[in-house]
Amino acid sequence: MKTNANTIKQTIEKVINKENFTPLHAPIFEGNEIKYVTDCIESNFVSSVGEYVNRLEEMLVDYTGAKYAVVTVNGTAALHVSLILAGVESADEVLMPALTFIATANAVSYIGAMPHFVDVDEATLGIDAKKLDAYLSGISQMRDGECFNASSGKRIKAIVPMHTFGHPVDMDALNKVAEKYNITVVEDAAESLGSFYKGKHTGNHSLLAAVSFNGNKIITTGGGGAILTNDEELAKKAKHITTTAKIPHKWEFRHDMIGYNYRMPALNAALGVAQIEQMDKFVNDKRELALRYIEAFRGIEGVKVFQEPDYAKSNYWLNALVLAEGYEDMRDEILTITNDAGIMTRPIWTLMNKLEMFRDCPKMDLSVSESLEMRVVNIPSGAWL
Amino acid sequence: MKTNANTIKQTIEKVINKENFTPLHAPIFEGNEIKYVTDCIESNFVSSVGEYVNRLEEMLVDYTGAKYAVVTVNGTAALHVSLILAGVESADEVLMPALTFIATANAVSYIGAMPHFVDVDEATLGIDAKKLDAYLSGISQMRDGECFNASSGKRIKAIVPMHTFGHPVDMDALNKVAEKYNITVVEDAAESLGSFYKGKHTGNHSLLAAVSFNGNKIITTGGGGAILTNDEELAKKAKHITTTAKIPHKWEFRHDMIGYNYRMPALNAALGVAQIEQMDKFVNDKRELALRYIEAFRGIEGVKVFQEPDYAKSNYWLNALVLAEGYEDMRDEILTITNDAGIMTRPIWTLMNKLEMFRDCPKMDLSVSESLEMRVVNIPSGAWL
Repeated sequence: MKTNANTIKQTIEKVINKENFTPLHAPIFEGNEIKYVTDCIESNFVSSVGEYVNRLEEMLVDYTGAKYAVVTVNGTAALHVSLILAGVESADEVLMPALTFIATANAVSYIGAMPHFVDVDEATLGIDAKKLDAYLSGISQMRDGECFNASSGKRIKAIVPMHTFGHPVDMDALNKVAEKYNITVVEDAAESLGSFYKGKHTGNHSLLAAVSFNGNKIITTGGGGAILTNDEELAKKAKHITTTAKIPHKWEFRHDMIGYNYRMPALNAALGVAQIEQMDKFVNDKRELALRYIEAFRGIEGVKVFQEPDYAKSNYWLNALVLAEGYEDMRDEILTITNDAGIMTRPIWTLMNKLEMFRDCPKMDLSVSESLEMRVVNIPSGAWL
Repeated sequence: MKTNANTIKQTIEKVINKENFTPLHAPIFEGNEIKYVTDCIESNFVSSVGEYVNRLEEMLVDYTGAKYAVVTVNGTAALHVSLILAGVESADEVLMPALTFIATANAVSYIGAMPHFVDVDEATLGIDAKKLDAYLSGISQMRDGECFNASSGKRIKAIVPMHTFGHPVDMDALNKVAEKYNITVVEDAAESLGSFYKGKHTGNHSLLAAVSFNGNKIITTGGGGAILTNDEELAKKAKHITTTAKIPHKWEFRHDMIGYNYRMPALNAALGVAQIEQMDKFVNDKRELALRYIEAFRGIEGVKVFQEPDYAKSNYWLNALVLAEGYEDMRDEILTITNDAGIMTRPIWTLMNKLEMFRDCPKMDLSVSESLEMRVVNIPSGAWL
């Protein structure tokens, strides 16, 4: 019998011990969350100057192996500042996958720069370095060592690989291409806290990276994010620009550039400290859940659960079903039947180039992204499942 | 005997029952803060979709009398979005006092627009409407009903009165001038939650207003802010643009404009709900402290405590000593002697036009602001004092 949407629903149900409603993801507060947040309130330092802010940064450094972490109000803010510090200016283009969450493109727009969309590899869900190289060799021009889009005349200053659903992009391959064209790499690691590329945590494979602690991420601070970098100077600048660029002084108010009110408040950091203490458990539970999904769907025709690439140890932030080509019609049926049954599922994001405000942005052939857009369904992935 | 810095220090000490260190301001958590934040964590909804977010918005509506409130990650974000919704575009100029906190000018810069600095009135510390009128009549040109700066050629789209230290600007006078030149008014009410102009809460006297709940404000959410408006359409747009401009759909990800990740997390809103419950007490305590300062400094030559204008009932967010002309030399001495003694004081902000990044912005004669910059010292103002 051919696989149908109902087969899919039943297979998910076998894994998740369905309750009345199973969300796609939800945070777990079983550690010191209430204790630390209470302590933070009792200390009276709930705002951006607070002990917990520094503590979360130290723990991020410990966990990720990045030399510096600067926590922010959210992941979008972290990416925005990372791009500014990478030297992106309003006249530039920034390469990014068309298959990403809106924040990647928004952060580029805040600078006034132009997203330039590239295709992904079905094996990684991240930027296809080989296809990118071939594309750039055709459309780019090097001038004084910098890469320009020959047709728009704009400088291509940066590229933002995004680690989709927590699965690391093939960073070695990507960095090689970026180096060839002198394009700065900034990782969008919003989804990949807990994911390692060749044994080294994501966010450590480029100049700067942005992490997110939004409510739906592997750990949460309510809202929050962080900039990771191994460059001391950039870390200092990141802290300066996220705290209104105020020059330290006992009482004087002087600011030396246009800065942002992007520092994470201590109240949120206190939650984050309690959450990051539990990272190992969260990652293990999520990897185990992924394994159970993989087993359950083994042998079901026309669909597989996305698996981490060989080079990666992934956090499996969101599990994804990938339908085989020819099964595209089943996507909406699966979405309807599962959501109607209280099992929250969703398609992958609408491709960025299809949104009104990014329709006129430059783009390469996006055939793999277009195909995946019709074939990927995210399924419940909370670590408690 | 002539007043000296020591007289000032001793007079402050008489009022505040000095401890080892007295900060300029600090939050007070004596209500339901820990209870609500704990409840928020236990509910599992700590992020931007959470009961406390709506509850804080409802309480802000109740308290301020504005028809709509949309809570944000901070006051800067609220002002940024308010300016976008007021129609400010990158080619525009926006009038604002030179005597303000950096966030006012930064928010304009985020849009790519140009701050245009105007002078303040010593009696209100806010924009001097009469002086503004005379200035605009000289430098502006009306074209198709819109106001242009004749020398820069740029449209003057908006004006941002800032209620300094919580003291309301004379909004009737300002609105009259704004109407004459068809300039949209957006209040920077970051410091004025709890302050009323002619019996109506600040933030209700213009198209849109921005409030702040930063750690140093009369109430705090750790970091946070709100947009206030009486226009339903603008309130809807404010919510849309602060939540990544996502179009509501059961599972689809479509966004119809460049949006922001600016929604306040529920964790912060829970703290805010507990705080706003105590507003009446905070305002009363702060008004009483102001009265004690006013009494204590009565009869001391060359200095007075700034008092609310007749039309206002102010929250006295920060108390300010205003030195008489001729006493400017005493300012730094007061700052040194008080801060050395553990009494935190600070001067008013460096004028915006003196900061490197705003040096080339257009400005009018700023003689009053320049004089005040040398004569204002903020003194400890916490409601617990």
